[in-house]
Amino acid sequence: MTAKESLDPVISAPMHRAMEAASFIRQMFEEGNRLRAELGDDAVFDFSLGNPCAPPPESFFSALRTVAGESSPADHRYMTNAGRPDVRQWLARRLSAEHELDITSDHVVMTCGAAGGLNVLLKSVLEPQDEVLLLTPYFTEYLFYIQNHGGIPKAVPTQKSFQPDPEAFRRALGPKTRAVIVNTPNNPSGVVYEPALVEELGRLVDEHSERMGRPVYLFMDEPYRRIRYVDTPHPSALLVSRNGIIVTSFSKELGLAGERIGYVVLNPRIEGVEVLFGALGIATRILGFVNAPAFMQRIIPHCAGSTVDLSLYRKNREILIDGLTRAGYEMPSPDGAFFLFPKAPGGDDRTFCDALKKQCVLTVPGSGFGAPGHFRISYAVPTERVEKAIPLFARAIDEFSD
Amino acid sequence: MTAKESLDPVISAPMHRAMEAASFIRQMFEEGNRLRAELGDDAVFDFSLGNPCAPPPESFFSALRTVAGESSPADHRYMTNAGRPDVRQWLARRLSAEHELDITSDHVVMTCGAAGGLNVLLKSVLEPQDEVLLLTPYFTEYLFYIQNHGGIPKAVPTQKSFQPDPEAFRRALGPKTRAVIVNTPNNPSGVVYEPALVEELGRLVDEHSERMGRPVYLFMDEPYRRIRYVDTPHPSALLVSRNGIIVTSFSKELGLAGERIGYVVLNPRIEGVEVLFGALGIATRILGFVNAPAFMQRIIPHCAGSTVDLSLYRKNREILIDGLTRAGYEMPSPDGAFFLFPKAPGGDDRTFCDALKKQCVLTVPGSGFGAPGHFRISYAVPTERVEKAIPLFARAIDEFSD
Repeated sequence: MTAKESLDPVISAPMHRAMEAASFIRQMFEEGNRLRAELGDDAVFDFSLGNPCAPPPESFFSALRTVAGESSPADHRYMTNAGRPDVRQWLARRLSAEHELDITSDHVVMTCGAAGGLNVLLKSVLEPQDEVLLLTPYFTEYLFYIQNHGGIPKAVPTQKSFQPDPEAFRRALGPKTRAVIVNTPNNPSGVVYEPALVEELGRLVDEHSERMGRPVYLFMDEPYRRIRYVDTPHPSALLVSRNGIIVTSFSKELGLAGERIGYVVLNPRIEGVEVLFGALGIATRILGFVNAPAFMQRIIPHCAGSTVDLSLYRKNREILIDGLTRAGYEMPSPDGAFFLFPKAPGGDDRTFCDALKKQCVLTVPGSGFGAPGHFRISYAVPTERVEKAIPLFARAIDEFSD
Repeated sequence: MTAKESLDPVISAPMHRAMEAASFIRQMFEEGNRLRAELGDDAVFDFSLGNPCAPPPESFFSALRTVAGESSPADHRYMTNAGRPDVRQWLARRLSAEHELDITSDHVVMTCGAAGGLNVLLKSVLEPQDEVLLLTPYFTEYLFYIQNHGGIPKAVPTQKSFQPDPEAFRRALGPKTRAVIVNTPNNPSGVVYEPALVEELGRLVDEHSERMGRPVYLFMDEPYRRIRYVDTPHPSALLVSRNGIIVTSFSKELGLAGERIGYVVLNPRIEGVEVLFGALGIATRILGFVNAPAFMQRIIPHCAGSTVDLSLYRKNREILIDGLTRAGYEMPSPDGAFFLFPKAPGGDDRTFCDALKKQCVLTVPGSGFGAPGHFRISYAVPTERVEKAIPLFARAIDEFSD
């Protein structure tokens, strides 16, 4: 126990460590609040948060009114932990057609967003000290989700383009590997993984499962699946691996991050999938979710096929890629989500983010995503803010030019 | 690893154990489904579930329509993990008046029901192997919640009436005790704890905190607080102990169990309460809740003071107490929730529940609640079902009479 920990017996030592680890985005957030209080809202350009700002589609608002008007008492009671049978059936039909597999409602679990889905999955499958592979850069929260359930996160390097590196991945697989989280389009890099590379990961996972005599799962975390600026096909987790599982949410594609609605799709090809389905129900219950919020479950089928209007993100992305490239920033041109992940000029991401902060531009150092030497720009902000920030990005890099 | 576990490498060994432990209510549920399929819905009398059947008040349905009509895009985005500031402020004002303490929005965390609230609290304060005291009989799910976060549940006996026994409680406090969960009105017994006894527990907890040099928390889990058939005052967790914390939900009082909306109230008198508040935010985030469902947060202030109509539960309770007492069952006459917890005639709860099942009456053995020799009847069912079941209860006890 450190001196600091002994000062605060009000929380546990593990929670102290979690709070310290979680502080890197929070610091930026608090710094932003301080700057806004001091200089006014307009003076601060906040690219630090991943809060989707594109409004939900009109179909969502009309569904809200319809479903509110149709509510009966039974709609608000406890239900099967996996979620409403009618909604799961509806999803199963859509997914069966899309993946050309026989998916039933007993392969679908409604969850409290993708974050809830991942926690429920990890709770169900991790033995103490099991390893979960993450491709760098990775969404920081994965570290906590894995540790919540006694697992050990293991970072796997990727190519320079942040595309998966199958050879590095193969080397990372070991006797303790229980799962890999594949997140495409990727937070924080915005990179859309090439389907052939994801298929290769799936093949390696299946071979490793075979060798080890127990399933190694491929969790495809895909909340940004419909936030893409290219037409390349999205790889199906259910097809690339026998133990591939989809985890997703409507947070980004419908602009509903606060409503906590998502789902998990189990692969019907998993041997013993019915046991895993039962475990997900129990995990949902005992972790305290109990079931995904009932009202939002009813909304989802009404919004079938709608997404937020991507033109805002598309425009911001173009302005930023153009402006930053001209200013001398180096980065791949990522095709999805609403993130850019440039190299930090000068090489040290924290130092460079501090320099941007002096220009009142808030971003997040890559160290927090397992990729020091880079930084994340979230462009889910009004276009006017992006336009005004370009000269500030240019000014910050000037300090680091030779 | 047992033989059975090695058969199912699809889930982890700890999850296997959880599923076996969780199966005692589930078995009854599945048995019920089997009986219903075989004999028809009307032939089966299901008193096994705690799913509140009284409909939400009219204020709830009108709030649904109002809030749906007023929704703007920002209402559905991420928010502070603790929940909407306006809703927390509204609650803080009400709670300040009620408890005569200065409660601010920084003492209130909106949660995914009381189950979410307890998980978030336990995640924040438990060191590995810390003990959490439970008064028997206790809500079974507590065992899982505590184990989720590395803690050890420790059962404390109560009086014959199921009222707290301060002397037994005092003896149970030890160097590893970090918290106690006090659940009144109680699930499964329906007993409303006497305020003087809860005050005594609070005093013992505070003395023990003092002795140990770290807070021992009293979590008052009170989702049934407004489901009471007596006018005795409900003890305030914030007043009975310096480290008393309220955890509750609207599941029962508004009939919203599926909507997953509740809250935690931290005691402003906790030393370092701002650190604990920060930890609850992080725990909410990393456990995957992220925030309580946004839409339902907005509904709650519209339903202020309303509750479900208690007359259904009140009537069922009277019919059951009268009918079972006449038939020879022994039990305290509990004053809250919608449960009775009679002695199992013949002494063995599982045997007796099987005998009831032969009469097509489903209940839950007390062993699962840490109180063998009793069984739980949940009377949140239509009154007509209660009336028809009385002769069946009478027939079952006949088998066990001398």
